[in-house]
Formats: sequence, structure tokens, C-alpha cells
Amino acid sequence: MNRHQLPTGLPEYRFPVDPWRLVERVYSNDDLGLTETLFALGNGYIGMRANPEEGREAHSHGTYLNGFHETWPIMHAEDAFGFAKTGQTIVNVPDAKLMKLYIDDEPLLLASADLDSYERSVDFRNGVLTRDMIWRTPAGKRVRVSSQRMVSFQHRHLAVMTLEVTLLDAAAPVVISSQLLNRQDGEDEYHVRSAALGEGKDPRRARKFDHRVLQPRLQHERDNEIVLGYRCANSEMTLACGTRHRIETSCHAEIVTDVGVDLAKTVFTVRATPGDPIKITKLVSYHSSNGVPVQELADRCTRTLQRAETEGNDQLLLEQREWLDEFWTNADIELRGDHQAQQALRWNLFQLAQASARTQEQGIAAKGVTGGGYDGHYFWDTEVYVAPFLAYTMPEAARKIVRFRWKMLDAARQRAREMSQAGALYPWRTINGEEASAYYAAGTAQYHINAAVVLAMRRYLEASGDIEFMSHEGAEVLVETARLWVDLGFYSSNGSQTFHIHRVTGPDEYTTVVNDNFYTNVMARFNLRYAARTVRFLASWNPEAFAQLCRATDLDVGELDDWDAAADAMFVPTDEELGINPQDSEFLDLEPWDWETTPPEHYPLLLHYHPLVIYRHQVLKQADVVLAMYLRSERFPVEQKRRNFDYYDPITTGDSSLSACVQAVVAAEVGYEEVALEYFTRSLYLDLCDSHGNTADGVHVASAGGVWAGIVHGFAGMVEQGDHIEFSPRLPSAWEGVTFHLLRHGSRMRIDLDIDGLTLTVLTGSGVPLKHNDESLLVTVDEPYRILRD
Amino acid sequence: MNRHQLPTGLPEYRFPVDPWRLVERVYSNDDLGLTETLFALGNGYIGMRANPEEGREAHSHGTYLNGFHETWPIMHAEDAFGFAKTGQTIVNVPDAKLMKLYIDDEPLLLASADLDSYERSVDFRNGVLTRDMIWRTPAGKRVRVSSQRMVSFQHRHLAVMTLEVTLLDAAAPVVISSQLLNRQDGEDEYHVRSAALGEGKDPRRARKFDHRVLQPRLQHERDNEIVLGYRCANSEMTLACGTRHRIETSCHAEIVTDVGVDLAKTVFTVRATPGDPIKITKLVSYHSSNGVPVQELADRCTRTLQRAETEGNDQLLLEQREWLDEFWTNADIELRGDHQAQQALRWNLFQLAQASARTQEQGIAAKGVTGGGYDGHYFWDTEVYVAPFLAYTMPEAARKIVRFRWKMLDAARQRAREMSQAGALYPWRTINGEEASAYYAAGTAQYHINAAVVLAMRRYLEASGDIEFMSHEGAEVLVETARLWVDLGFYSSNGSQTFHIHRVTGPDEYTTVVNDNFYTNVMARFNLRYAARTVRFLASWNPEAFAQLCRATDLDVGELDDWDAAADAMFVPTDEELGINPQDSEFLDLEPWDWETTPPEHYPLLLHYHPLVIYRHQVLKQADVVLAMYLRSERFPVEQKRRNFDYYDPITTGDSSLSACVQAVVAAEVGYEEVALEYFTRSLYLDLCDSHGNTADGVHVASAGGVWAGIVHGFAGMVEQGDHIEFSPRLPSAWEGVTFHLLRHGSRMRIDLDIDGLTLTVLTGSGVPLKHNDESLLVTVDEPYRILRD
Repeated sequence: MNRHQLPTGLPEYRFPVDPWRLVERVYSNDDLGLTETLFALGNGYIGMRANPEEGREAHSHGTYLNGFHETWPIMHAEDAFGFAKTGQTIVNVPDAKLMKLYIDDEPLLLASADLDSYERSVDFRNGVLTRDMIWRTPAGKRVRVSSQRMVSFQHRHLAVMTLEVTLLDAAAPVVISSQLLNRQDGEDEYHVRSAALGEGKDPRRARKFDHRVLQPRLQHERDNEIVLGYRCANSEMTLACGTRHRIETSCHAEIVTDVGVDLAKTVFTVRATPGDPIKITKLVSYHSSNGVPVQELADRCTRTLQRAETEGNDQLLLEQREWLDEFWTNADIELRGDHQAQQALRWNLFQLAQASARTQEQGIAAKGVTGGGYDGHYFWDTEVYVAPFLAYTMPEAARKIVRFRWKMLDAARQRAREMSQAGALYPWRTINGEEASAYYAAGTAQYHINAAVVLAMRRYLEASGDIEFMSHEGAEVLVETARLWVDLGFYSSNGSQTFHIHRVTGPDEYTTVVNDNFYTNVMARFNLRYAARTVRFLASWNPEAFAQLCRATDLDVGELDDWDAAADAMFVPTDEELGINPQDSEFLDLEPWDWETTPPEHYPLLLHYHPLVIYRHQVLKQADVVLAMYLRSERFPVEQKRRNFDYYDPITTGDSSLSACVQAVVAAEVGYEEVALEYFTRSLYLDLCDSHGNTADGVHVASAGGVWAGIVHGFAGMVEQGDHIEFSPRLPSAWEGVTFHLLRHGSRMRIDLDIDGLTLTVLTGSGVPLKHNDESLLVTVDEPYRILRD
Repeated sequence: MNRHQLPTGLPEYRFPVDPWRLVERVYSNDDLGLTETLFALGNGYIGMRANPEEGREAHSHGTYLNGFHETWPIMHAEDAFGFAKTGQTIVNVPDAKLMKLYIDDEPLLLASADLDSYERSVDFRNGVLTRDMIWRTPAGKRVRVSSQRMVSFQHRHLAVMTLEVTLLDAAAPVVISSQLLNRQDGEDEYHVRSAALGEGKDPRRARKFDHRVLQPRLQHERDNEIVLGYRCANSEMTLACGTRHRIETSCHAEIVTDVGVDLAKTVFTVRATPGDPIKITKLVSYHSSNGVPVQELADRCTRTLQRAETEGNDQLLLEQREWLDEFWTNADIELRGDHQAQQALRWNLFQLAQASARTQEQGIAAKGVTGGGYDGHYFWDTEVYVAPFLAYTMPEAARKIVRFRWKMLDAARQRAREMSQAGALYPWRTINGEEASAYYAAGTAQYHINAAVVLAMRRYLEASGDIEFMSHEGAEVLVETARLWVDLGFYSSNGSQTFHIHRVTGPDEYTTVVNDNFYTNVMARFNLRYAARTVRFLASWNPEAFAQLCRATDLDVGELDDWDAAADAMFVPTDEELGINPQDSEFLDLEPWDWETTPPEHYPLLLHYHPLVIYRHQVLKQADVVLAMYLRSERFPVEQKRRNFDYYDPITTGDSSLSACVQAVVAAEVGYEEVALEYFTRSLYLDLCDSHGNTADGVHVASAGGVWAGIVHGFAGMVEQGDHIEFSPRLPSAWEGVTFHLLRHGSRMRIDLDIDGLTLTVLTGSGVPLKHNDESLLVTVDEPYRILRD
């Protein structure tokens, strides 16, 4: 639906406003998928959906480890040469969240429980999911049940849970069955919503397997520790997961453990008396690997659990708080004048922390570690939407993200060969480095991912100044990606000697396999030039690294001229009459979409029209020309941005979750304050209001990154120019002010945005080079700098 | 590989020259797939590959019934709205060809047998496959083994086999085990060649099932008759197949039958004495249905078998001969001056008879009934390549073909709705009327099939004068196909008010999903105009039929003007500078293919390059602009045809078997005699020399139709103009003469083509309207007409 046809206002925002927490005060079975995602915990490695301790009703009892996946042969209904062969799907690892409670042998079941009070919240300052309630049992006894859950930001392989039960009225036998349950190979996935989804054909959801994925390899039990070990049937990835329990109570308690291949239980039976709390602490560890034996992983689990036990719960909570304190110091955005937006903003930023804290050179999946959507695949969107946030707030995490792509370089070289090309071609979707996109038109054909990888590296370099990375890993990627573009495109023989790239798909997946996609050509041009310039710089700056690069990539210096020549000759679609950039060479020839006769329930279009019907029309999933205006902002005058925005915005459905945040940034830049705020608001609440209807499958992490960009690049108008930055403040008049921080080359700065402009204050470091009103200067800690609104 | 890069000469032609038979004098295990296809028998309903009576070594023990198929849910690796849902695959029905021979309990096995003589032949005059040999058994006894096999052209459901065994030297026990074996659900399909095909990924081959397809429903045995009945697990189609045996011998013989669900045996044990022949006659019947109960089909088998037995073998052979006599009277092409070409020509014509004789309103699959290639699907190629042959030689068969499409009209309407279009859209590949093309870019996107259906109807009308058909069934198809085009295309808003059709694929599958494909637009224009004209004619000529049409299709007469308007405004890509018609609106912008570095083993390209790589270049599988020059020959001046031929021919790989014959016709027309002959020769021997390497999967029936077109439209230059025909004789100088016959509006004519021109002789009927040198005349039986070569 294009903007002007959207029903005004947002879907209902059903959470009490709180600046630092997401809170739920009424339990509901109606949107479990949504709340499992919104309250999910993760640290970039371990991810736990917010299923209650009792298990039972769920959209998906998901627990994920970044990169831990099963493979399967992609069976194409009609195969062809070079089609992706290896499907990759993130595995739902054994569920350690379960701590089932029985009082008088009656189970606590939230859906039917008689609750005197209920509150669940995730606190962005300490990363703890807390639930407190008073339950009136079927026998009429009141019981206080409090639980806490935390996935450690500090300890990659650790999660900690506590469950505290206090009888308020009368004594009763209390049983707590704490479990570790392999659900991947069970039957209870998606059992609430599956019927509602028709035949479950939404291609964006995770695959279900018909074979046993987790092959049991080890069951270990000693003292209060249990470890289960598995190996994936096809991918042969290995996994160990362990638990360690402690009970604190003055009541009499017995503990029995029962360990099977798919289920390990630690059952506490307590003769509880009123007023005497029973507190169970459950330490959980996961270790996974590509090739390490299961026994070794089990040993690691044991060590993680022992260390955690030694540290103790309080210390672990303290470290968690410290980690997040530092995160918020650099990444927080304070928004004055809209409390609800403030809450939503911090929720989005918290998601970025949860997706990226401990990836350790894995990528960031489209859903982070909060759900199985898109099979847990890595796409281009991390590089384009998340990497800039990381570069200016968590440079170490940014470095991991770009190194992750360097580690995939050999696989990308191999894929380029399969596609009859030189250099390297990054797969459109992947976990293990191999192309997993089964629909090439909206997959493999998105060659632009190569430029996204390079763009992320450049953002990282510019923010961090990590020239060492760029001299080694980065340079290799630059060389191989540039080679791909030069080989993929060709010089037209029609006399113009322009350079063309044909049969590719841009980010807008509502047209595919087109010629001279504007976004692709512009980004390829950037990639080529940046590669040539960087490699030339390296040759003079660090001859040794340059020599090493030449050896590693068999580089001939003449190639650099080829890259520049192709960039110089790059064809960029332009329509003089409309004054815009056509999305591709034939886009303007397409038939307009018939918006009038498209009923609201036909969005997203991809679920209601054959691809050929969509491709045949001027209708966009996301406006990639507008995206190019944002990513290569410094290259295009505002007037060109405005004209392109004016043309494409009305024909953009926003069916892609990557659309709204970009429209917001560019709308802000071209002076459409109201439109910018509307789009920003959409991206801000995209998950919190489930406006795309699939938050159940996991958080839209890239959109969360786009929310940050909406503030920093949109309303503060920050543009990175490599040797300096610039700001163009334009705070929406609906707000009172915004404050955020950036790290750049070791300097930490605070930006205070108000209605008249902004103040840049350098807090630490050697200063920030700035250009403003054609004046170049270095802003230092001594002197805050004021920039007035245009 | 383009023409100029082909190694000169053809692959070896390994058959002894014989004007009326295909003969093999040396048995070989090396190319079983090829010979099984070349010697296959069929009548358009039943098809039997030429597996020897002994069974054993085979590429594929195929027996097929036109349209008898199993369905399966197409699992798309990445699904999308409107993708084809129902896979359809022709079933390998129980094999009745088996008559295993044992002497002294030693089996006859051709691969290792010590043969004193061997000859196998199929005679085009009587449609009988004969094998004669003298076998020296392991015990050293010489035995004459003669067999005959015939699939009846006269009796749709009948095949007849005989096996005659005569000991020449010494007595011996002789056992003949005549079987009916369900191989579909066995394990022995493709067991010879499967390894050689790598992972069996060639998408052109038939699917293998992992479920039992033929569910046993009936086993019947009485006297010397056996009937087995089945129902397909998914499609629920029903089948009965039966055998009836007779033995003639003076030796003592015992007969034992053994009937199981997948195998029925009739075993003859004979105490054979030298010089006393043993002759077994096996009558075979197949009946299949969409819904008739198995028992009813079994009864039909019994009746077919009883009638055949009553008629007797000699009578059945006589009827077969009579049928073929009539076929050859109308369809034979006598070619003087090249005996081998004469033989190949008749083999091709014989294939057309075998594919179309008894289809009974089924379509003609890409491989006829000779193999399981392309899953037994019907495509557009019957309409374009075979229907003209049928129209001028077997009008009743042509009528069946066009009625078959009318019967599918409701399914085509439904498919149009799924594709968000008005009217009807014929599926790209199908058996039951539903789209079965799992790769839309080279499938569903080929909207041009609609025009192919209309073209076939027009050809049929023009040749037969069957205005009744066109007034009823035909008109409905015209209305619905025209509606599709008008709805699919649109008027450009750029001021030119041209009509465009976007995101379609033409017959050349080496570019897909393009805008304004020349072939598609030209054929759509034809479809629109022809529909409007025919419906207008109907309104005045037969108001009652017109009224009925309006009711059946809810037709508003204003629609006719819309069709004409769209046709008049149809955009036809033209390049003034090159003087050619670009294949589509962007074709000329594509990069040239790098022919130099493409090794011969990389053809066909589709098996060696990712589709995106192929689509990105100016390289063709078949030249569809050239095809349009042929199909709409009367609309284009010779000079335009020549320029298009000159441009496209060098960039056409001919990877499609539909390519060579069309290049031949157009080359002939534009005066490239040598090139025409070369292409004609390629199409002539396409299967006989296995030049596409997949004749094992079945006869390329459309190419056989193209061979006929090469003579009639190419070298005789016949052009149908609706109210008259024209000829432009241009016999290749390598030949002495060609004689063929045509039926047109009940008049039978003979065309004698010689080096100086041709003579048209009307043999029966009221005469043939002809135009020659701007003179219109009626050639009657009284007066042969002479046309000199230009």
C-alpha cells in the first residue's frame, strides 16, 4: 500500500509506557508469537524466545545459537545449472527455558490460571526478563511466583534463570520440573498459529524437517549438572548444552534427575510452608561448533557452568549491568517529548545489542537470534542497516561483522566461478557461506550484496580508523568484489562506451532480473572506485601489506585502472524529462499499478499476486533508488533526492520491512518533516505493533538499525565524508529534543538535537573533524560546537 | 553452437538405406535408449518403446498411454503466489512387450547371445516391428527366432505381438514366458544410462516417484485371458491392461498362468522338435480413464481382446496396412536423388502418424508416446509444428488437436484468474489442463502459447473449411484468448499510445521475462485481429451461433473494437539502423556471447551456465524472430526476413530441437539454398543421428512436423493465405525432385517439385484456389498448373 493509502495511525500499541522497560501486565494467549519475539533475550550467540517457564502454549518454543544450522539438499521443482544446492536452516536447539511448576500436583498454566496479579517485563538496563505474579491455585491457595531470565552479554555461552515460589496462605507440596528438551525433533512446533497460516506456505518462515536433525551423541550427569550432546545429521555441526541447578529454601526438598536423549529433567519436590520462599537457580550453557567433538563441547559446557556457579548470581547480574551500562553510554538515544517513542526507541536499540553483542565472527541473521524466520540466514541487510550503527557505537562488534565476510571470501570466490564470473560473489542468503537462495530472481540475482559488504567495511574504517583491517582482510575483499563487477558488466558497443550491468535484481524485489538497475550500478561504481583508491593508497602507505595482497589475490596493478575505467563509464539511468533516476533501464516503460482496485487485504502483494504480475508494474516493495540516495548521500544533490523521493514514494508499498526507515531518512533530508516522522514512526513500531504481521517469526533487526539511522542520518543529518563528518539538524517539531552519542576514531561525542539545531560536544579523544557551512574544523573536548538548522 | 561453428557433416548415420523401413542388422547394447526410441511403435494412444521381447538391458522399458498420468504436489524450494501446484507425470504402464525365451532352460539374452544372423526393422507401410535372427544357443543348437509387434492404428486399444521359434538342429525343451509387468513401481527404470547422466539432473527427463503409483485394484484370469487393473495413487486415473494368448505348434505344449498384482505370466512349455515352428500370438489391450471404474475398463479390455481374436491376426494386419496406405496416400513425400534422406523423411512422417493417429482429443506430448521425456507434457509445439501437417494431410486428427484445447478452456480460464488476468491463459506444460511448469520464467511466462492455440485453429479452418468447428468451439477460444492479450498488455502513457506486453518469455528460452518480445507481440496481434474478424463474421453468417457464443462467453460486442485497437496499436520492436526486428525491447543492448571461449562440450548452454549468465547475452536457443517470419510469413517482406535471418542465425545455438527446421524454412525463403538444406538435413536426422543427445527420452515429434514444413513451406514455398494458397518452388539442386500431396477443403492435390519449379495437379475435389504472379485462379482436376522457379 502506498503511503497515501495507509489507514491513518498505527496499530494499537498495547504496552504501558516505561522509558527503560517493555512491560506486559495482562497475559494473553492471542498473540504469543508476537510477545515471544518482543520479550526474547539474546546476546548475538544464544537466543531465547520469551516462552514462559511452564512451556505449553506457544507460537514457537525457540532457542537458537547463531550459525548453528542443519543442511538439506535443495530440491528444485525444475532444476537448472548453478541453482543453489545446499539449504541451510537454523536449528531449534534443546529448550532450557522450561521450569514447570506444580502445586498440590496441579500445574501452573498461564492460559487458564487464576491470577491475582501479573507483570512481565524486560529491562533494557540489565537485560533481564522478569515475571512476577500471584497465582490462586485450583485449591484456592495464593502463591507468589517470580522468575528471572538472562542471557549473558558478558559470557557468550551462558544463560541464567531463577524461579522463586512462595506460598502465601497454606502449605502444599511444590514440584518444580526443570527441563532440557529437544523440541527440534519433536512435534510441537508452531502448534498454535499453524492452522491460521493456511498451508504454511509463507516462504519467509523456517523450514520444517522430516528427518531427525539432532543425533544424540552424549548424555552426561554428575552432581547437579546435566549435559546433552548432539550432532546434526547432515551439516555435522556439533552441540552441547548443559544445566546446573541450585535450590535455596528452608523447606524440605528432594532432587531427582532423569536424563534421556531428548529430555533431561531435574525435579525438585518441596514440602513448602507459607512464607518460606523456594528459589531455584538454573545455569544454562550452550556450545556449538563446526567440527569440535561433542565431548569437547560438553567439557566446555561444564567449565562455563562451574565458572558461573563460582561467580554467583549477583556477580553475573552485576557484569550484565556493566556491559549494558557501557552499551547505553555509547548507543542510547534520549528522546524528549514522546515517552512512548522513547520506550520504543530503546527497545529497538536493545534489539541491536541482543543481535550483535557476542556474534564472534558469525553474521547477524535477519531475525538476530530471536526467531527462525528466513531460516536464520544472513543477508545484505546487516551490512547496510546494522553495520553503521555498530561502527559508531560498538566498533568491536562492527569489526566482527566485516571480518565475518572476509572469512567467507573463499566460498564467495567459488560461487563466482559457478556463476561464470571472476572475483567473488557473496551469496544472497547463507549461513555457511554457500548460496542458499532457492529463487534466483530475488536471490542470486541480487549481486548488489557485494557492494553492501564493501560499504560496511568502509563505514567501519571511517568510524574506527582501523586501517590495519582494511590493509589486510578488507583489501582482499575489495579486490575480489571489484573483479566481479568488472567481469559482470560490459561496455556497450553502441558507440557510447558506457559500462552496463545486466540481468540483476536490486533491493526492490518487486522488479527482478533487470538491466542497469540504478541502485546496483551506483553501488558497483562505488565499490570499483573505492577498491581502486584503497588499493592504491595501500601500495604507497604499506608496501609490505600491498605485496602480500598481490600474492593473495594474484593482483595485477593494471586491474586498478580497469576498475576506475568501468566506474567512470558506469551507465546511470537518468530521465531528463521527469528529472529522476529510473530504477532500471525499462522501469519507466512499465504499466502503473492499479492502486484503486487493490484491496487492503492484498498486501503484501507478494502473497497475493504471481511474481510476473508484480514485475510487470511500476510498484515497489522498497524504493531502491531512494536507498541509493541515502547510502551514497554525499554524491547526490538534495534536489535530485527530492525528485526521486517524489516519484517513487507514491508507488512504494513498503511491503519490505527495510522500506520505512530509509524513506524516513531521505524524507527528512529533502525537507518533508511530516512524512519523515510518519515513516520513522512506522519503522519505530514495526515490531512493537507487528505492522508487517510476521514479528512472530523474529525481530526485524535491520529495521531496528534503520531506526537508529532515522535519528542519526535522518533527523541529525549526519553524513560521513571519510575525512570529516557533517550534520544537518532537523528535529521534528513534535519532539522537544534528542540526545545521542557517537564514537569516531576513538573520540566520543555527544549530539544534542533541539528544534533550532544541534550542539556537538566532544567528550573524550582527540577531536572530531567537522565541516559546516564550507568551513572545516576540528571540534575538541574544549569547545562544544553549535550547528543551526538551515 | 552457432551454425558457422558446427563441425561439418552429421554424426554417423548407422542404418542401412531402405526407402520404406528403418533397419538394424547389428544388435548393440551401447545406444539402447536411441534405438528403443527410433524403433518405438505407437498409435497416438498406446506407445511402446522398442525393448526386445526378452526385456533385460534397457534404457527404459517404456509403455505409455497418452494422457495417463500421476500427479504430485510441486514442492518449490522457495514458493510464491501462483506458482504451479500440481505436477503431472506420464506413467509407465505395465509392460506387455515381454515374451522371454528359454531353450534348454538357457535364456536368450541379446547382449551375450551368439547370433548367426540378426535383423530388426520397422516397416512404415504396415507399422510392424519385425525381428528375425538365428541364435546359436549355449548348447550349440541353432534356433530361428522371429517376432512381430504392432500397435494398431485402426484399433486404439490394441497391440498385437507374435513370437515364432523354430529349432533348426536338434530337439530341446522350449519355454516362453509371456508377461505383463508393472515396472512403474519397480526398480529397473533407466538402469543402463542413469550413471552416465551424473546425478540425473537433466530437467528434461521424467520424474521418478517415491510412492507406489499404480495401486492394484483388480486381477482377472479366465481361459487364456489375463487383465490387471490399477488406480493411480494421486491422480486417481484408472487403468486396465489385458493379454490373450494363442499358441500354434505341432509340438506338445503346456500352458501355465500365474497372476499377481504386479506381474502376470503366461508360460508355455513346449517339447520342441527340429523344423516344427512354435508360434505364440499375444493380443494386448489397454484402457485408461479419468473416472471410469477399473472393472468397467477391464470389461473393455476383454471386449477388445475378444474382438481382435475373432478378427484374427491376418485381418488385423490387413487393416493396419489399409490405414497406413491411406496415410501415405495423403502424407507421403517422395524425395528423388537422396535415398538416405528419403528413408529419414519417411521415418519422420511415420513418427507423426504414430503420434497423432488415435489421440482422441488428447494432445500430442513433446515425445508423442515414445518416451517419458518432459514428463509426457503437452506444450505449444504441437500447435505450431505439428498441427499444420495434420491440417493438410489428416484433417480429422487436426480437428481432435484443436478440440482438445477447447476442452481445456475452463482450466485455462481458471489459470488466467490465478494470474490476475481476464480471459483464458493456456498452461505452458500440462496433461490435465493445470499449469505444470515449475519454472515460470521459461514456463508460465510463455503467454505466446495462447496464440499458438489460435494459430492451429486457423490452420485447421483454412485447410479443412470446417467452419462449424470455428463457429462453436473455436470462437469461444478466440474470445477468451483475445481477452487475455488485451488485459495483459497496456497502452503506453508516453504519448505514443502504443500497446505493450511486458514481462513475457518468447519461444527463445535463452532470454526470459522481457518486455515486448517481438514474437509474442506479433502473434498476439494476429490473435486479436483474427478473433475480432472471425467473431464479426460469425455475427453475420450465423446469428444463432453468435448469440450462443455471447451467452457462453458473456461477450460484449464492444470488446471486438478493443481487440482491434490493441492490435492496431501493438508495439513491434524495430531497429531502423540495423534494419531488423529486435527480439525484445532490450535485446540489442545485451552483451554479445563469447563464442570463441565456449568449448563444444558446453552445449547445450542450459546444462553448463546459470540462467542469469545466458539471459545476460545475445545468444539464442532458437530464433523466435525468425519463427515469427515463418508463421506470419504473409505479413513480412522477404527482405525483412533476410535481414532478421542474417542477424539472428549466427547467434542461435540451436540448443532447441525446434530451431533447425524453422531456420531451414526461412533460409529457403530468403534464397539461402545451401543453408536451408543444411538446416533441413539437421532436422531430418535430429533423432536418427541423436544430434541433441536425448533421443533416448523419446522422438522429437515437433521437429518431425518441422521436417514436413521444411519441404512444404520451405522448398515448395507453400503459403496459406486463407482464401487461396501460393507456392514458391525452390528445390535444392542436390535433389532431383520431390512429390507430395495436400488435402485442402476436400480437394486432394499432388505437388511435383523439380529443379525448375513445380506442377500442381488436383486429383480430386472441386479445385484449389491459387494465386501466382498476381493472378488468381482455380486449379481443377482437368488441368495441372505449372509454377516456375523465380
